[in-house]
Amino acid sequence: MEQKIRVAVIGASGRMGREVVKTVLRESDMELVAGVSRTTGPIDLGKMVGMDDCGVLMSNDIEQALSEARPDVLVDFTGPQTAVSHTNLAIRLGIRPVMGTTGFTPGAIAELDKLCQDNGIGGLIAPNFSIGAILMMRFAAQASKYFPHLEIIEYHGDQKLDAPSGTAVKTAELISEVREEIKQGNPKEEETIEGSRGGYYNGFRIHSVRLPGVFAQQEVIMAEQGQALKIRHDSYDRAAYMPGVAIAIRKVMTYSGMIYGFEHFID
Amino acid sequence: MEQKIRVAVIGASGRMGREVVKTVLRESDMELVAGVSRTTGPIDLGKMVGMDDCGVLMSNDIEQALSEARPDVLVDFTGPQTAVSHTNLAIRLGIRPVMGTTGFTPGAIAELDKLCQDNGIGGLIAPNFSIGAILMMRFAAQASKYFPHLEIIEYHGDQKLDAPSGTAVKTAELISEVREEIKQGNPKEEETIEGSRGGYYNGFRIHSVRLPGVFAQQEVIMAEQGQALKIRHDSYDRAAYMPGVAIAIRKVMTYSGMIYGFEHFID
Amino acid sequence: MEQKIRVAVIGASGRMGREVVKTVLRESDMELVAGVSRTTGPIDLGKMVGMDDCGVLMSNDIEQALSEARPDVLVDFTGPQTAVSHTNLAIRLGIRPVMGTTGFTPGAIAELDKLCQDNGIGGLIAPNFSIGAILMMRFAAQASKYFPHLEIIEYHGDQKLDAPSGTAVKTAELISEVREEIKQGNPKEEETIEGSRGGYYNGFRIHSVRLPGVFAQQEVIMAEQGQALKIRHDSYDRAAYMPGVAIAIRKVMTYSGMIYGFEHFID
Amino acid sequence: MEQKIRVAVIGASGRMGREVVKTVLRESDMELVAGVSRTTGPIDLGKMVGMDDCGVLMSNDIEQALSEARPDVLVDFTGPQTAVSHTNLAIRLGIRPVMGTTGFTPGAIAELDKLCQDNGIGGLIAPNFSIGAILMMRFAAQASKYFPHLEIIEYHGDQKLDAPSGTAVKTAELISEVREEIKQGNPKEEETIEGSRGGYYNGFRIHSVRLPGVFAQQEVIMAEQGQALKIRHDSYDRAAYMPGVAIAIRKVMTYSGMIYGFEHFID
Repeated sequence: MEQKIRVAVIGASGRMGREVVKTVLRESDMELVAGVSRTTGPIDLGKMVGMDDCGVLMSNDIEQALSEARPDVLVDFTGPQTAVSHTNLAIRLGIRPVMGTTGFTPGAIAELDKLCQDNGIGGLIAPNFSIGAILMMRFAAQASKYFPHLEIIEYHGDQKLDAPSGTAVKTAELISEVREEIKQGNPKEEETIEGSRGGYYNGFRIHSVRLPGVFAQQEVIMAEQGQALKIRHDSYDRAAYMPGVAIAIRKVMTYSGMIYGFEHFID
Repeated sequence: MEQKIRVAVIGASGRMGREVVKTVLRESDMELVAGVSRTTGPIDLGKMVGMDDCGVLMSNDIEQALSEARPDVLVDFTGPQTAVSHTNLAIRLGIRPVMGTTGFTPGAIAELDKLCQDNGIGGLIAPNFSIGAILMMRFAAQASKYFPHLEIIEYHGDQKLDAPSGTAVKTAELISEVREEIKQGNPKEEETIEGSRGGYYNGFRIHSVRLPGVFAQQEVIMAEQGQALKIRHDSYDRAAYMPGVAIAIRKVMTYSGMIYGFEHFID
Repeated sequence: MEQKIRVAVIGASGRMGREVVKTVLRESDMELVAGVSRTTGPIDLGKMVGMDDCGVLMSNDIEQALSEARPDVLVDFTGPQTAVSHTNLAIRLGIRPVMGTTGFTPGAIAELDKLCQDNGIGGLIAPNFSIGAILMMRFAAQASKYFPHLEIIEYHGDQKLDAPSGTAVKTAELISEVREEIKQGNPKEEETIEGSRGGYYNGFRIHSVRLPGVFAQQEVIMAEQGQALKIRHDSYDRAAYMPGVAIAIRKVMTYSGMIYGFEHFID
Repeated sequence: MEQKIRVAVIGASGRMGREVVKTVLRESDMELVAGVSRTTGPIDLGKMVGMDDCGVLMSNDIEQALSEARPDVLVDFTGPQTAVSHTNLAIRLGIRPVMGTTGFTPGAIAELDKLCQDNGIGGLIAPNFSIGAILMMRFAAQASKYFPHLEIIEYHGDQKLDAPSGTAVKTAELISEVREEIKQGNPKEEETIEGSRGGYYNGFRIHSVRLPGVFAQQEVIMAEQGQALKIRHDSYDRAAYMPGVAIAIRKVMTYSGMIYGFEHFID
């Protein structure tokens, strides 16, 4: 009989943490063995997410919880402040870390990679677990070789502070590695309303739409005479990240070393 | 038996003129009786547009052509320079003008209205004959009463000089007459790439996309928590204006006075 | 000082009921005075929906709750089985019913209308409170006068049982009241895969897409030579209905009689 | 100095032939050396397509034209009837054929491949030269590994006879090579209007929209909980195929043998 993968969730009462708890409880090849949250009492993790009781109570002490539950994998979306220390702790305990955050320097990643290899375990650091977003970016970059005339339109909620989105900038970078650099548009083009042509990036434009009720959407439009190719990814909520988290939990069981970027798991 | 409407086309060899010639030749209740172009020889108008010969040769003298052919209606897309003089000429000859151009001052329109009424004939001045564009603008304005959070995205060919398009600005004006004025977005919003949030107009944003192969498209996106309403008009070529021109030719036969704006014919 | 509208929510622990509770607690001109659910204990209604305690406990006896709380308006999404009896009860107690359900016969509606008028109060029965869906249907019908060539594509979750959706059929009916009846497509058209041309309705086609993660979306595409007009409504979750419920609560305070259909409140 | 590629166009007065003539005249590394049409007189090929005279007159004898002009490459969109004989003729004369048609049996292709190799020249047979359509199909197939829940919607003109389109069927085949075979939708699903759920193919659905003014569009929609990935290709006119034809003309100069399918030129 196949052994289940034992999973601990750090930050289990957060918005992403709750989704991860639900995912682990649903996947038949995984077993939830610990949940940690500093702000929640010892509630059953299943009850917390509106599912049946699962017999695992929330802990508020990460070290104790991990030592007792001895998980194979730790999933942690608590953010950059705690990321490095949690990753170190996990590796030292022989637990494979799946870290959903930014905030690691290249030097820190190199060190963690060595630590993983020394301990013979795998790990993943990934700011983005959305398979759809990764495919959208990849397809857009591939197509830009043949369709160098393109623009990016991204849509997010109206309370988002920064524009363009991180995904739009990442997409623009990936496209720029492939696309022949041309400056699009008419050189004599004039804006009668400033900013209407969008943000300029390496010869093409990025437009950021902000409207209530939108979670995260992006379209890359590529056009030539007589045709247009459009690649669009719409995310409606955090559930969109969970198939990626499930893939990551299974994958870190299979190699040694620290990988940066979930895109390496998608072929 | 119903009499056909006798139509003359001024600027008949131009890009819009050729489309009008084709339209008049195709509509069973219209008869093409004259075509005028200063740059083309006396070619048969049907042959010119790739249809069967129609027996009407291109003229290069507008006054002579109109006097001889005695049309009911004149269609003229030659542009602002000649618009006032051609309209005056038509009305004096008792011919109903359908003028597809801007370039008339309010004073000129008032005078032409009086002239039309004195002669007991109808006339139309219209910068835009696109029924779809008119409906798109009207629906967007109506919906903005209930959906005040909105953005406009317009798409045109990559050699267009001005941004945003005239249609986008007109749409924004019509929306502003109805929409409660709120400033959308987060007040602390910041652009890391200047212009990415688009052009600002009365609290909302306009984005202008410029790509090769696009003729004219516009989408108004309106959103609230949990829903979005999108109204989009795509024009692929000048044929898009012809159903509107046909409606105008029939309509100017039915009233006295000069009307400004094709939208008055669409209920 | 303006008096707040006193609102009771029947079926307050259901998926729609919880959204209504949140809406009433948020709107500054409304006061939540009672909530009824047969399956939930006496929990504070604010706590139940994850907001601050509001001081109103859930009741399991509708008649007692209404008699004690004396609301101005009752909102009820419990469904067709209880709809008629709840509506009767409300009107007899002088409470304006806002009923979010089908299941009333024309005869029952006529009777309830008389009862409302006799009691000098307003009421609403509405299967659909989505302002965006109502505008989408209305605009599509209006445009079909000028764009008789059209198709409807609707998108719902992959577990939905019936196709096409009720909204698609309602849209098709409204279009058919306006649109010149033409049979679209080539008369010699052949399907190499049966059903690929969609469902036939009065000369046009309806396509039902079923995919996981979709709540409710519909697009009406209307086209002529050279142009297309697209009207699309996307709903992401039940929050989409709440602006309509809020409008209804305010509106039933202003007339006598029973109105069928929320579209009468949208001009 | 680089030698230009000498190109002959067969069926040069047809709709595709005219586009090819324009393309060859515009590309700086190509030289138009012959054009053949059975139905047109000896008109200058440049004049025929509305460009400057190019000094090459239309011929009505393919063998004579090719023998005299000695092109490097022949482009032929005349269709299946003449495809095999024209291809044979070209190869015997040492001219690389670029054949834009179906109608070759696998046996015929194998023979032509040998003939090409014996003559040390390259050739291409391709039913579709649209780079955008090829990328759309490829991306959809790749993504279906991660997004097995999908539907295809294709849009063509309202006079098209067959549904679904050849491109939609080809896309469905390519997806089926990759996608885990699952039967989508609710097993108890019922159509109240027959055909509304579209055409069934290997567990997923294909919808064919037919509207006036549409040239060729296709969207593959792939969805999971919380997200959707959409890949769409819109063709507006035959110009969409010309970048592909230009790539093919250059590529057949670089290998020996007959290749079937333009997708092999797109990496």
